[in-house]
Amino acid sequence: MIPVQAAAKRLGHQSMRFETAPAIIASASVVGPREGQGPLGRYFETVLEDERYGERCFEQAESRILKDAVNAALGAAGWQETELDALLSGDLLNQTVASNYAVRNTKMPFLGVFAACATIAEGLLVGASLLEAGLAARVVAAASSHHEAAERQYRYPNEFGAQRPPTAQWTATAAGAVALVVPATGCETAGLPRITYATIGRVVDCGQKDPYDMGTAEVPAAWDTLVAHFRETGRDPAYYDLIVTGDLARIGSEIFREGMRRRGLEVGSRHVDCGVLLYRPEQDVHAGGSGAGCAASVLASYILKEMRAGRFRRVLFIGTGSLHNPVSIQQGEAIPAIAHAVAIEA
Amino acid sequence: MIPVQAAAKRLGHQSMRFETAPAIIASASVVGPREGQGPLGRYFETVLEDERYGERCFEQAESRILKDAVNAALGAAGWQETELDALLSGDLLNQTVASNYAVRNTKMPFLGVFAACATIAEGLLVGASLLEAGLAARVVAAASSHHEAAERQYRYPNEFGAQRPPTAQWTATAAGAVALVVPATGCETAGLPRITYATIGRVVDCGQKDPYDMGTAEVPAAWDTLVAHFRETGRDPAYYDLIVTGDLARIGSEIFREGMRRRGLEVGSRHVDCGVLLYRPEQDVHAGGSGAGCAASVLASYILKEMRAGRFRRVLFIGTGSLHNPVSIQQGEAIPAIAHAVAIEA
Repeated sequence: MIPVQAAAKRLGHQSMRFETAPAIIASASVVGPREGQGPLGRYFETVLEDERYGERCFEQAESRILKDAVNAALGAAGWQETELDALLSGDLLNQTVASNYAVRNTKMPFLGVFAACATIAEGLLVGASLLEAGLAARVVAAASSHHEAAERQYRYPNEFGAQRPPTAQWTATAAGAVALVVPATGCETAGLPRITYATIGRVVDCGQKDPYDMGTAEVPAAWDTLVAHFRETGRDPAYYDLIVTGDLARIGSEIFREGMRRRGLEVGSRHVDCGVLLYRPEQDVHAGGSGAGCAASVLASYILKEMRAGRFRRVLFIGTGSLHNPVSIQQGEAIPAIAHAVAIEA
Repeated sequence: MIPVQAAAKRLGHQSMRFETAPAIIASASVVGPREGQGPLGRYFETVLEDERYGERCFEQAESRILKDAVNAALGAAGWQETELDALLSGDLLNQTVASNYAVRNTKMPFLGVFAACATIAEGLLVGASLLEAGLAARVVAAASSHHEAAERQYRYPNEFGAQRPPTAQWTATAAGAVALVVPATGCETAGLPRITYATIGRVVDCGQKDPYDMGTAEVPAAWDTLVAHFRETGRDPAYYDLIVTGDLARIGSEIFREGMRRRGLEVGSRHVDCGVLLYRPEQDVHAGGSGAGCAASVLASYILKEMRAGRFRRVLFIGTGSLHNPVSIQQGEAIPAIAHAVAIEA
């Protein structure tokens, strides 16, 4: 057996420490009309007037909002498309076609990632790893979802008129993109959000079979990852100003907080959830938002803008994703879930 | 604008050099009956007697062959599941459920990747990056496909009886897994396959709309990546003993070789294709094999075993993937494709 070189920046079984602390130098978000009317409306770069966005189908509209978010992040970073070393992106559509079509015939080296609603967290984690390794200098992580496209490919088509129970989450029409670099040595970086740690999730399946209650299915994965994160980094919840999950929604969030308390890791009012933040209670989205674009757009707008403004300094961002598909549910399988955590500190 | 730290190991726009040259210390493959009867039959660890593999549906059978391949690679590497720092895996099923269910309730930190039939190449590339960064010490990259499950979720169900034209490729029932480490300094590594370079692909769409001719759709992406690879690394095709694509199949391979010749990059008899290698011409698979498990299983068996045996020393492995889905084809879109290249040298 070959003796293995130890990983100097590995902490325990799931966590990693980024010595270079890749910096988030720009981010951008594009959302649908309903999301624009939500409480975070003023934080988004672009709010669509309609869900089709001038495209001939919802799927192409999703590709376009993703492309617009990526291009807006590139613009805000001051980069040409040809300067980008890697785009990491994924979405809820089958075979992640929203991302695939968004970047076709561009010059962007592309790596497809998938973790359902946790996709942006995986993209940040992998993107930061490419930077840490010195294999890339300029990286963008992005993710998207589109309500109508997801209903067609991921749930039931709208025309079917399936009734939504109170536990159901509303797939957001939204895209978010985040630009990462390692700042040159000695340059002024005060106040810049940096990725300092990440914890890779494991797939947890507690037997929950209801795709209209994904928040609950994702909670055990969030617990699993956060218990590992705090143990392996030696931190506790009080270290962070903000512990952001995306997306457990209202019902999942309550169970999440209660379970953290029982594990001796009280998150209390530090905890917010992207699926709760994105809509007003009266917007008829039931338990809250979901979809790969929900966490991505909330991170790329509200969270990162308030970090740059100095309101939050230490944020733990936990993407949570349900890893089933409609066929697996019809086959009687439960919903496996995953949570990836990324520590972002200004 | 923040001054950006240059990436020391980046070569041009798409390529990367792995200074640590992560070593492939083990690999394993599990294939279906038809694949076992092909010319590579003796190279596979496990050949199924039937496509269901004792599971109640084809999708769960795919999860199981993937899990078996990963566990066999772990076993061959001498690792416990709890020692693994990251599994990178993906597959053709919607929302990559074969991978998701394969690892549920295991202890493996999991990162979902998707590049259709090029998934194993992306997994190797990202896995090697985690090692290069010192963020992980033990990584497995894997991918799978299953003929019947893919026909149901990715093409037409078998019961539909769609006629296959001669350009069609046969989705392989197969899984491959590859275990990577950075060997400790000073240890004996002679003959061990090492990942030395990689070139990240871009999404190329040349307007080809026929999902029964994916090899042809993928060829321009393969050209794009290989032109970049040779330009950015300063190598030429003659440097390599073997240039392996996966999967252009018979028709795509001819167009690929002709196009490389016209670009002044003659690959000639150095070129083989996983989709051509996997089946005998009389096995009625039309143009050849495809599916994320095709390239993964051929790499994990024939290619790596012959490298360890000293028959091949310098291999350029190019995963090629079609990035459409059935809905996008029905909507009149063409097939975007991607190719990721990984240089493996013993």
